[in-house]
Amino acid sequence: ALRRALAPWLAEDLAPHLADLPVEQLAMLFRVGPPELVATTFAYVPLEVQKRLLKLLSQDQAAELLNSLPPDDRTAFLNELPLDLAMQMLALLSPAERQVAQALLAYPEHSVGRMMTLDYVAVRPEWSVREALDYIREHGYDRETLNVIFVVDTSGRLIDDVRVRRLLLSPLDRPVRELLDGNYARLRPTDDREHALELFRQFDRVALPVTDESERLIGIITVDDMLDVAAEEATEDIQKLGGTEALDEPYLTITLGRIVRKRASWLVVLFFGEMLTATAMAYFEDEIAKAVVLALFVPLVISSGGNAGSQAATLVIRALALGEFHVRDWWRVMRRELAVGVLLGLVLGSIGFLRIALWSAVSDVYGPHWLGVAGTVGCALVGVVLWGSLTGSMLPLVLKRFGLDPATSSAPFVATLVDVTGLVIYFSVALVLLRGTLL
Amino acid sequence: ALRRALAPWLAEDLAPHLADLPVEQLAMLFRVGPPELVATTFAYVPLEVQKRLLKLLSQDQAAELLNSLPPDDRTAFLNELPLDLAMQMLALLSPAERQVAQALLAYPEHSVGRMMTLDYVAVRPEWSVREALDYIREHGYDRETLNVIFVVDTSGRLIDDVRVRRLLLSPLDRPVRELLDGNYARLRPTDDREHALELFRQFDRVALPVTDESERLIGIITVDDMLDVAAEEATEDIQKLGGTEALDEPYLTITLGRIVRKRASWLVVLFFGEMLTATAMAYFEDEIAKAVVLALFVPLVISSGGNAGSQAATLVIRALALGEFHVRDWWRVMRRELAVGVLLGLVLGSIGFLRIALWSAVSDVYGPHWLGVAGTVGCALVGVVLWGSLTGSMLPLVLKRFGLDPATSSAPFVATLVDVTGLVIYFSVALVLLRGTLL
Ligand SMILES: [Mg+2]
Ligand SMILES: [Mg+2]
Ligand SMILES: [Mg+2]
Ligand SMILES: [Mg+2]
Ligand SMILES: [Mg+2]
Ligand SMILES: [Mg+2]
Ligand SMILES: [Mg+2]
Ligand SMILES: [Mg+2]
Ligand SMILES: [Mg+2]
Ligand SMILES: [Mg+2]
Ligand SMILES: [Mg+2]
Ligand SMILES: [Mg+2]
Ligand SMILES: [Mg+2]
Repeated sequence: ALRRALAPWLAEDLAPHLADLPVEQLAMLFRVGPPELVATTFAYVPLEVQKRLLKLLSQDQAAELLNSLPPDDRTAFLNELPLDLAMQMLALLSPAERQVAQALLAYPEHSVGRMMTLDYVAVRPEWSVREALDYIREHGYDRETLNVIFVVDTSGRLIDDVRVRRLLLSPLDRPVRELLDGNYARLRPTDDREHALELFRQFDRVALPVTDESERLIGIITVDDMLDVAAEEATEDIQKLGGTEALDEPYLTITLGRIVRKRASWLVVLFFGEMLTATAMAYFEDEIAKAVVLALFVPLVISSGGNAGSQAATLVIRALALGEFHVRDWWRVMRRELAVGVLLGLVLGSIGFLRIALWSAVSDVYGPHWLGVAGTVGCALVGVVLWGSLTGSMLPLVLKRFGLDPATSSAPFVATLVDVTGLVIYFSVALVLLRGTLL
Repeated sequence: ALRRALAPWLAEDLAPHLADLPVEQLAMLFRVGPPELVATTFAYVPLEVQKRLLKLLSQDQAAELLNSLPPDDRTAFLNELPLDLAMQMLALLSPAERQVAQALLAYPEHSVGRMMTLDYVAVRPEWSVREALDYIREHGYDRETLNVIFVVDTSGRLIDDVRVRRLLLSPLDRPVRELLDGNYARLRPTDDREHALELFRQFDRVALPVTDESERLIGIITVDDMLDVAAEEATEDIQKLGGTEALDEPYLTITLGRIVRKRASWLVVLFFGEMLTATAMAYFEDEIAKAVVLALFVPLVISSGGNAGSQAATLVIRALALGEFHVRDWWRVMRRELAVGVLLGLVLGSIGFLRIALWSAVSDVYGPHWLGVAGTVGCALVGVVLWGSLTGSMLPLVLKRFGLDPATSSAPFVATLVDVTGLVIYFSVALVLLRGTLL
């Protein structure tokens, strides 16, 4: 009855709905359902449920499931398992599938090889469109996509990729060769998945071929997996920008130990950096003692620099991720931030000056030398905001230049850097402007 | 010669390459090239170049181009023009195309209606697979995608969508009706594009249908445009998290005036918020005068709270964007942050305490009451870090609850909030622990 009810559904349409079922019902389905549907559904189930599910199945059932899993989804699953469990799973595979799985897992994390699948359709250029369509009809049922068909020569070298629309729109007796433009975008298995994402965005493709050094077709990548990559890469960057290590797991289900470790590592680094503010303040302790009023504006001045810096860092990091410019364009970025920083500094500096002047007009909270204090705060703000903008914009470029992830220059990181230097700027301005009056 | 050289190319394969040509060569191509290629290429050209290009064309050429532009790309282009220019462009359209363009532009910004195209293929359920394929062969050439075919009844109501693979794999004499599972995901034109992105991610489709209230098919959305939406939405969130308004333009080409305005607005708001630190500091001025040593640790203590807060805010904002939890789950989030905040606070508090104790062991920089100072800093850090974590995690939820964008609770915004309250926590702890010794 179950089989009959499911018959008109295409596995890939049904699978995302089934994946929401409770784990016991899933296990039941997995014991009796058709292998293709089972495998496709498994790929949509969250990792934790996948693990529990496999434990509920017999050894034979698990083996069948793992053998019929699409290669890319299998790689993703095995990758998340502890090594011993992954080895047990590999042992359940047939020799042919095991070889495939091991080859894919051998590529570096976040590489194209890790996400490619081998279930593509390849046709020959000398075939007619009719022969190609017949071939697809016969062999296409278990392939990841039929939206793009790949054309290879006798030695498996990629000649071109053809959108299936091209086949559908052509007279049936035309040779495939005449549909080709000899042009295709292709990936290498060792490419970073972010590079793949760029190509998909640029060329609006639904699948891209992966070739080895001799241009032999060895796999394909499909656009549905790219949407997930886009989300994961943005998550990574956003979390780093917020001053955490990337969690790599959902917020609510990551263990307390792991989330504390991922946050504490950066917090401690920042804390050590921020300790330099205490050192800098101690250096100016005499000035503070003489003019306590100066201390009142310390948080205001330094955090304004941090805010401007975190703006600049965020904008530059995102522009780098989108490929809007490259490290070699640093001077154009710096020129921008020089102009923007001065203007923003003047805005905040004027407000700061006015605020102190206004308060002093109606009270004497800032003492008889309020004008000097207002001038100091105003000038320091210009300097600190400019400095923050420059630091924030250049730090990601410097990190990238040295092969590090630009997103590491998080808002808190830039703020910390600017806090320390901001203090020095503020008290130096004070020493110049207030000598002979307050200091 | 140009036409001959371009003949074997499919317009959509060639267009992304041509789009990089200098504007004069593009204009030349646009005067002589085949209309389909010209229209497709135009869609890949950046906005600034699009505008210059149109100025280089004659009125007739511009009219032909605009009329053959895919509806979704035309909407995107017209949307970016000033109103008067957009009206001039609309006037160039044929009555039929003008009606389409105006209907699409009438949908709200960032809605599904704004990105849909009308160039889909719809077939009837009573047709055989052969008839459907013949129909596609005849009418499919200018359609946005042939990867998904839509099945409608006589009144245009959507019955189902069918992946073309299903047609390709079926015997030619089977009726289309037998390929249907009666299940489809569909969008409304007024849906937010982020909702569309979620559906694409969940169901791994390459195209989704858009229907009106009576389930009539009125357009489709394709996955290539979703990759761009994913990038744009992530950019928006990242820029807001960094404390800027979303730029909506590339960093290097936005005018100086606009970038300064987008950054100054938030900087000024934050500056006014941060002014409260000066007020809070003034309130504790006597204590600072009595114990200048307390002032030294102000930046260290308050910024640690801001850092913890910006971590929490970032994690919660991203989890909300990915749909990992909802506003109603606030208590689970708060419980997490209570635990994480206390643990992180204890880590930083211990380091802070030890640092002051160690320095005091080898020098008398912190005076005879160093133990009290160390205790004050340590305890204040626990409180401030916990408070930062709670504020940072709850603020995005509160914003979302009131219909605002959670990403508005940027790292600098949270840091500012926590700076002010952090000062109060710090000096309150000092008043309790140091009464009778330093204060
Ligand atoms: Mg090609
Ligand atoms: Mg694109
Ligand atoms: Mg896949
Ligand atoms: Mg998949
Ligand atoms: Mg990466
Ligand atoms: Mg990255
Ligand atoms: Mg700060
Ligand atoms: Mg369906
Ligand atoms: Mg998906
Ligand atoms: Mg489109
Ligand atoms: Mg397009
Ligand atoms: Mg939006
Ligand atoms: Mg958004």
